[in-house]
Amino acid sequence: MPGLVRICLVGAGRVAKVHAHSLVRHVPQGELVAIVDTSPETLQDTADTFSIDSRFVSLEQALESAQFDAVVITTPTFTHKDLAVTAAHSGKHILLEKPMALNLEGCDDIIAAAKDSGVLLQLAFMRRFDPEFQAAAERIEAGEIGKPMMIKSLTHGPGLPPAWARDLETSNGNLAEVNSHDWDCIRWLMFDNYQRIYVEAANFKGQARGVDTENFYDTALASIRFENGGLGSISSVCPCDYGYDARAEIIGEKGIMQIGQMGGQAVVVCTDRDQGLITPIYRTWPKRFEWAYIREMEHFVECIASEREPKVGGEDGRWAVAGVLAATASFLEERPVLMKEVMS
Amino acid sequence: MPGLVRICLVGAGRVAKVHAHSLVRHVPQGELVAIVDTSPETLQDTADTFSIDSRFVSLEQALESAQFDAVVITTPTFTHKDLAVTAAHSGKHILLEKPMALNLEGCDDIIAAAKDSGVLLQLAFMRRFDPEFQAAAERIEAGEIGKPMMIKSLTHGPGLPPAWARDLETSNGNLAEVNSHDWDCIRWLMFDNYQRIYVEAANFKGQARGVDTENFYDTALASIRFENGGLGSISSVCPCDYGYDARAEIIGEKGIMQIGQMGGQAVVVCTDRDQGLITPIYRTWPKRFEWAYIREMEHFVECIASEREPKVGGEDGRWAVAGVLAATASFLEERPVLMKEVMS
Amino acid sequence: MPGLVRICLVGAGRVAKVHAHSLVRHVPQGELVAIVDTSPETLQDTADTFSIDSRFVSLEQALESAQFDAVVITTPTFTHKDLAVTAAHSGKHILLEKPMALNLEGCDDIIAAAKDSGVLLQLAFMRRFDPEFQAAAERIEAGEIGKPMMIKSLTHGPGLPPAWARDLETSNGNLAEVNSHDWDCIRWLMFDNYQRIYVEAANFKGQARGVDTENFYDTALASIRFENGGLGSISSVCPCDYGYDARAEIIGEKGIMQIGQMGGQAVVVCTDRDQGLITPIYRTWPKRFEWAYIREMEHFVECIASEREPKVGGEDGRWAVAGVLAATASFLEERPVLMKEVMS
Amino acid sequence: MPGLVRICLVGAGRVAKVHAHSLVRHVPQGELVAIVDTSPETLQDTADTFSIDSRFVSLEQALESAQFDAVVITTPTFTHKDLAVTAAHSGKHILLEKPMALNLEGCDDIIAAAKDSGVLLQLAFMRRFDPEFQAAAERIEAGEIGKPMMIKSLTHGPGLPPAWARDLETSNGNLAEVNSHDWDCIRWLMFDNYQRIYVEAANFKGQARGVDTENFYDTALASIRFENGGLGSISSVCPCDYGYDARAEIIGEKGIMQIGQMGGQAVVVCTDRDQGLITPIYRTWPKRFEWAYIREMEHFVECIASEREPKVGGEDGRWAVAGVLAATASFLEERPVLMKEVMS
Repeated sequence: MPGLVRICLVGAGRVAKVHAHSLVRHVPQGELVAIVDTSPETLQDTADTFSIDSRFVSLEQALESAQFDAVVITTPTFTHKDLAVTAAHSGKHILLEKPMALNLEGCDDIIAAAKDSGVLLQLAFMRRFDPEFQAAAERIEAGEIGKPMMIKSLTHGPGLPPAWARDLETSNGNLAEVNSHDWDCIRWLMFDNYQRIYVEAANFKGQARGVDTENFYDTALASIRFENGGLGSISSVCPCDYGYDARAEIIGEKGIMQIGQMGGQAVVVCTDRDQGLITPIYRTWPKRFEWAYIREMEHFVECIASEREPKVGGEDGRWAVAGVLAATASFLEERPVLMKEVMS
Repeated sequence: MPGLVRICLVGAGRVAKVHAHSLVRHVPQGELVAIVDTSPETLQDTADTFSIDSRFVSLEQALESAQFDAVVITTPTFTHKDLAVTAAHSGKHILLEKPMALNLEGCDDIIAAAKDSGVLLQLAFMRRFDPEFQAAAERIEAGEIGKPMMIKSLTHGPGLPPAWARDLETSNGNLAEVNSHDWDCIRWLMFDNYQRIYVEAANFKGQARGVDTENFYDTALASIRFENGGLGSISSVCPCDYGYDARAEIIGEKGIMQIGQMGGQAVVVCTDRDQGLITPIYRTWPKRFEWAYIREMEHFVECIASEREPKVGGEDGRWAVAGVLAATASFLEERPVLMKEVMS
Repeated sequence: MPGLVRICLVGAGRVAKVHAHSLVRHVPQGELVAIVDTSPETLQDTADTFSIDSRFVSLEQALESAQFDAVVITTPTFTHKDLAVTAAHSGKHILLEKPMALNLEGCDDIIAAAKDSGVLLQLAFMRRFDPEFQAAAERIEAGEIGKPMMIKSLTHGPGLPPAWARDLETSNGNLAEVNSHDWDCIRWLMFDNYQRIYVEAANFKGQARGVDTENFYDTALASIRFENGGLGSISSVCPCDYGYDARAEIIGEKGIMQIGQMGGQAVVVCTDRDQGLITPIYRTWPKRFEWAYIREMEHFVECIASEREPKVGGEDGRWAVAGVLAATASFLEERPVLMKEVMS
Repeated sequence: MPGLVRICLVGAGRVAKVHAHSLVRHVPQGELVAIVDTSPETLQDTADTFSIDSRFVSLEQALESAQFDAVVITTPTFTHKDLAVTAAHSGKHILLEKPMALNLEGCDDIIAAAKDSGVLLQLAFMRRFDPEFQAAAERIEAGEIGKPMMIKSLTHGPGLPPAWARDLETSNGNLAEVNSHDWDCIRWLMFDNYQRIYVEAANFKGQARGVDTENFYDTALASIRFENGGLGSISSVCPCDYGYDARAEIIGEKGIMQIGQMGGQAVVVCTDRDQGLITPIYRTWPKRFEWAYIREMEHFVECIASEREPKVGGEDGRWAVAGVLAATASFLEERPVLMKEVMS
């Protein structure tokens, strides 16, 4: 057996714990060897949970003191570029959380650094590894529903995002933080790139929850035209409160396909005929995408071990960022925006 | 256009109202012309609802004073035989509610009277006219799931039946009053007759609801062997409180078929992620079998108008009664009972 | 009992047969007394089906020779205005199929004629009478999901519409002919009017089916902003080939509601584990909205009998037409269009 | 960290591979160290798949030559007793596949050996660890549906079992080999033991598949009375061909609960309106119970590491065997059989 792939987590928050769990419990070829976080509390909490002794407050420190092959970057979006470039220049393979960066320059820098350093760069679009989304993609590619004409993708998240993630300056807002997965999915499942984007956005819940960030929105609907004439939409609601909801519907020339459902567990109960049947809903994204996170980490570790290119990389991350930039320009300027305006 | 088929309701209670509604609103070839009930209040209530002036306290009175072609008998089971025989002898076609009679002698008398008088006799097994059950029967007959090997049928009703309907002396209890439809369905969908029956029964809720009838049961499970070796079960729960539940599942040599579902209306709501999705359940049998009741009445009226034999008749009613008799003997004697023991 | 409401069908095509069936079989208070169609074959076919002797090739002829209280207008859109105005001026109540008219002037003329003549004008938005949509509307109004933030409505129809119905000159195309119901539904269920509309449209199947009409589209996605800030979308695919699909999803401040489903009959079969479970889909709109059509006609007849205003009328029809006009301008001019631009 | 729990697989067939996969990929606290099988081909295949060098043709050999803490026994039923007793006497903890043994004496010997040797004995009823079944059990225990009155459990398996597993002499047939899980489930979910059992069985497919084993059945329905008066049924069909189907339905005094569903993946497709919607079905038990197998192995390893008693053990295995013995007597003797007749 070749040696284990040694991994350092950069960022120790909520999604970092999900990745750590995958690594430690379900990906025996990988080894979690170090954790970085600027917050001592977060660092201690996650490192204690997974019994990791190598703890650092900066990536630089970790690079100096610990031996590892790869990083998993889960810090806030505005830090991605510097961390990913640093990791790449130190020869570390990178699993980078979405959104890739705040802007296309950031994406380009990361892609260039990875390429120059010869390290692998995988974007954390875990839906690519979800058994349902993956089966759907294969069936579309096999022609089951014919050429895709229209795709509707939605992600609605239950709770209010942290302050940095709802500010256009530090994150590009919900369409980036919550819906990066949809931007990636629609390109993936339509086998095509976006050409034009129009967005309507609204703020229903902000005031009641004390959010006064400029241009904050909790509800948005993006309308997309693809290069080959296909249509698409992305629905964004966060906080939606009612659960974690991630679904897609594709209409092809031969038929329709629905991916995902709200119901999360086949335990149906009725105790009141005036109320009706009750089925559990997916409450959280780690539960909805439990297998996707495991398979994603397996893929990253296997790609490193076998020196293969990950199947979702920098260009995919860059397209999702570009989509968000066009989308943001659209609702701010109240007009459709062409991708070539932002990707020039 | 030929004249309308004139109908007299015998019995004016709950199911009578359902039949009256079908007749008055949805079966233009039929005409509700008279109503009979021994209870003045019930009579007035139903007759007022449908604006019928011809009201009688006995079938004999109605036969003497009103002109009609047919009767719909919805009175308690123990009255069926005398009323049906009287109607037949007066030349009236008969739509007879289930169960057909208390015993096989009653069934035989009704069948003979109808035959001797040349009147049509239709049993009110409305599931035969339900679009779902009917489509299922046709698809089974067409061989879609192969030769049926096993059928499971269930009817669970929400509320405690009236006193006469839970007493073995006056009704044969729930397996007759609630589950007559299942007894008919399993013969219909298996294309075979029962040969042997075994029943377990239990009384969970009786005491708390003040029922002290001997041999009362609210929960029963019948196990059936068919003549050609197929197996079946009937599940009976009444009062089940949670809704009106009528479903069947058939396993054939080539596959499985499920008929019916608990969910009654495709309006799904989630407002609490700790609770989950809520779908309305069928609350009542008139709602679950809304079209079945209309189609059943259409069939009765059309058969009379065109002098055709109804597709569900006396023999079907007799088999259901025989099944109940064997079932009752089984749980009282704690042994499997052969149909030939009760049908001799 | 007051006299029956006598009705003349103007237009004898497919939807006319649906209305005739409702009238003749399920609405005893109404009476189908005459039928008008300019095509002798269509006229004969429908009149024979329902055994109607009073047959006319024009509304004028019918008005001259037959006695009736109301008309049901189901002719092509471009004829609506003249027929409705003529009917109104002759004192006939009107049930008018969607779309109301080709333009707002047409709508205004109809509304004025009905008002001036004191006749009732009901628009044939049958989803308002569908048990599911209706229950949903009541539950939203009762506050169950909180203030609606976003609605997505879709209608996908199986077959290629007739030539006049896919030409913007004679019909305004699919967004009018197929999706008028969605335009009405989203106003109804959001309890708000549209303010701004943006549409992307595409033509995937036209060429292969020999359609060379200018500006033909078979796939469209409308993005809607409501006056109070809510968002909406309408999805249009016709011909979609896979079935008749009509659903809506509403996200409110407190939760989500889904109305309708693709599955059309609860008979589920599996005979091949490599294929999976098969559930019937709704194949046609008359089947999907069977009760809705009956309830719609009941409402029309009851409103006439009781001299009440129908609950969906000229203003609703006019808003749907206005939405379509803004939508068409949007995709032709590739920009969002404000309602005030078209409703001046 | 304490040392890993070292495990030897005894039996290297299909279910052994599932357990090996769990161990090697998803249970880092456990270590697969040796494999035993009497068939050289099976041994080589499985050992190669998991890169295990320690390979033995008998448990005795393995005990002599390899170091391990526990065994996972997955050999045919008739070998269970000797292997389990040998393992226990050698101080090895035991995860024992169902059915526990051919008869109660076998069960008693195993229980006694484990107790005498102080080793842990876990029965491989993996449904106890399935997230859906487990959540259901907790919700029933919490009183959500009230006191359980009736449970229906079914397991239908796709393919013809091997010869030894359909012979009453070597396995007790399908009710043991396929339905052991149901026997365990109904006790677990009813919080009660069986008192009386009645079974109907049939052989529909045997002849066509060349099975001439005496008393072979492919379809059976067990009717169960519990000690406290609850009712139950177990449905057995194997080979059912249409998929792997495992579901349960419990009616309690307050309501109904359904556990499991046929649909296996939320990817719904429709490409033909005459056929309808297609949803994947669970094809195999390893897929249906993917998490259950992982959680079961985790539990076994954790119990060993922490010296805790497994939550499903010898007594549970013994009850399931007793149920099967009463069931077999019932259909052979065509009468209900009391548990006390077989458990004396």
